[in-house]
Amino acid sequence: MEFALPPPPPPSLAIAGTHTRFPVRRIFCVGRNYAAHAAEMGADRRAPPFFFTKPADAVVDSGAPVPYPPACRDLHHEGELVVALGRGGAGIAAQDAPAHIWGYAAGIDLTRRDLQAAAKKAGRPWDMAKGFDHSAPCGAICPVADCHDIARARLELTVNGTTRQAAPLADMIWPVPDIISHLSGLVTLAPGDLIFTGTPAGVGPLKPGDQVGVTITGLPPLSIKIT
Amino acid sequence: MEFALPPPPPPSLAIAGTHTRFPVRRIFCVGRNYAAHAAEMGADRRAPPFFFTKPADAVVDSGAPVPYPPACRDLHHEGELVVALGRGGAGIAAQDAPAHIWGYAAGIDLTRRDLQAAAKKAGRPWDMAKGFDHSAPCGAICPVADCHDIARARLELTVNGTTRQAAPLADMIWPVPDIISHLSGLVTLAPGDLIFTGTPAGVGPLKPGDQVGVTITGLPPLSIKIT
Repeated sequence: MEFALPPPPPPSLAIAGTHTRFPVRRIFCVGRNYAAHAAEMGADRRAPPFFFTKPADAVVDSGAPVPYPPACRDLHHEGELVVALGRGGAGIAAQDAPAHIWGYAAGIDLTRRDLQAAAKKAGRPWDMAKGFDHSAPCGAICPVADCHDIARARLELTVNGTTRQAAPLADMIWPVPDIISHLSGLVTLAPGDLIFTGTPAGVGPLKPGDQVGVTITGLPPLSIKIT
Repeated sequence: MEFALPPPPPPSLAIAGTHTRFPVRRIFCVGRNYAAHAAEMGADRRAPPFFFTKPADAVVDSGAPVPYPPACRDLHHEGELVVALGRGGAGIAAQDAPAHIWGYAAGIDLTRRDLQAAAKKAGRPWDMAKGFDHSAPCGAICPVADCHDIARARLELTVNGTTRQAAPLADMIWPVPDIISHLSGLVTLAPGDLIFTGTPAGVGPLKPGDQVGVTITGLPPLSIKIT
């Protein structure tokens, strides 16, 4: 069938070193996966990982403008390692999880902290705080064979050139294979799914005009401007 | 690009009276939109509507089996009117909203009440309680020109032939145009988006073997079996 007006193109992201694009199916995100960030958000670091989502349509390529969300009162940056899946499945064991990874990228889990704080207080869903338009900026995806050893990589997020977040990925409470295993116990994963793996300490507010960068050792850098 | 194994086909739903299918882009859901259900969930009926989401992949056609989710301890039925959008947009005024509606269907917002109760208590996201595999059964979509007057329709949900939920759609706290207007103030809507419009009182547990039916005056009925 056809609509009177065509829908937007299916969401996709750049692949490093190519002109082809990675088709994005769904976006899953891990909450509180670094001990120091869990502490700054008032959480128990020993709790099992929990998950939330963003619509695939929320992806934004590096270099594209990111409008400050309408009516937002507190937009926060959360720099993260993003895992792109090339194989799906349910009930994936942690030792089998690496074979499901297609590549890695540097991303930002943009968060409307105003809406998230209200949702937490009321016991309500986070979806509108996490899954708004342009809420998932993501650098070009590096195919796994071309990546630096991710377990030894460092993440750094800067705002207007000043470091705001910096941590080794080894500080993750739940490493990538455990995240994939836990998540695949809750939903059946598919090729094209992205997983944002949680953010280290140092989250903070953004304003229109801010230039935000995320670097992860060995991956293409992500750079966006809030407009 | 291609994956080693092909991804599942893009999600879609039957269209009443045709062999073509409606491409599903995203699924938005309204929380507590009937006064009696809001009361049974302990909510204030005068609060503005709030929204959560399911992945588009969660749609299930009428007649298809719905597996009881793995490790679930409390699966609940929530029968709902589903609105399918043919036009997108942001900041849509309520009086302009009807022109964005492509059709209507009968749906069930399947809910893992076990995970939802834990999430509410902890102030955590609802996503895994609402957006699991097969969580969005939906009958064939009836194009708007062929529909009965929806504002005067009644919804009924049965389990093994016994009525569990029954209400006029006029009991909605926020009617469909207001829902579209509120939601489009938070995200930019697109053709292919579905909106589950909330459930009336009478939600309750399901078990494997249960046959669940939803009828809404003038729309194709929805019938699923929990397996």
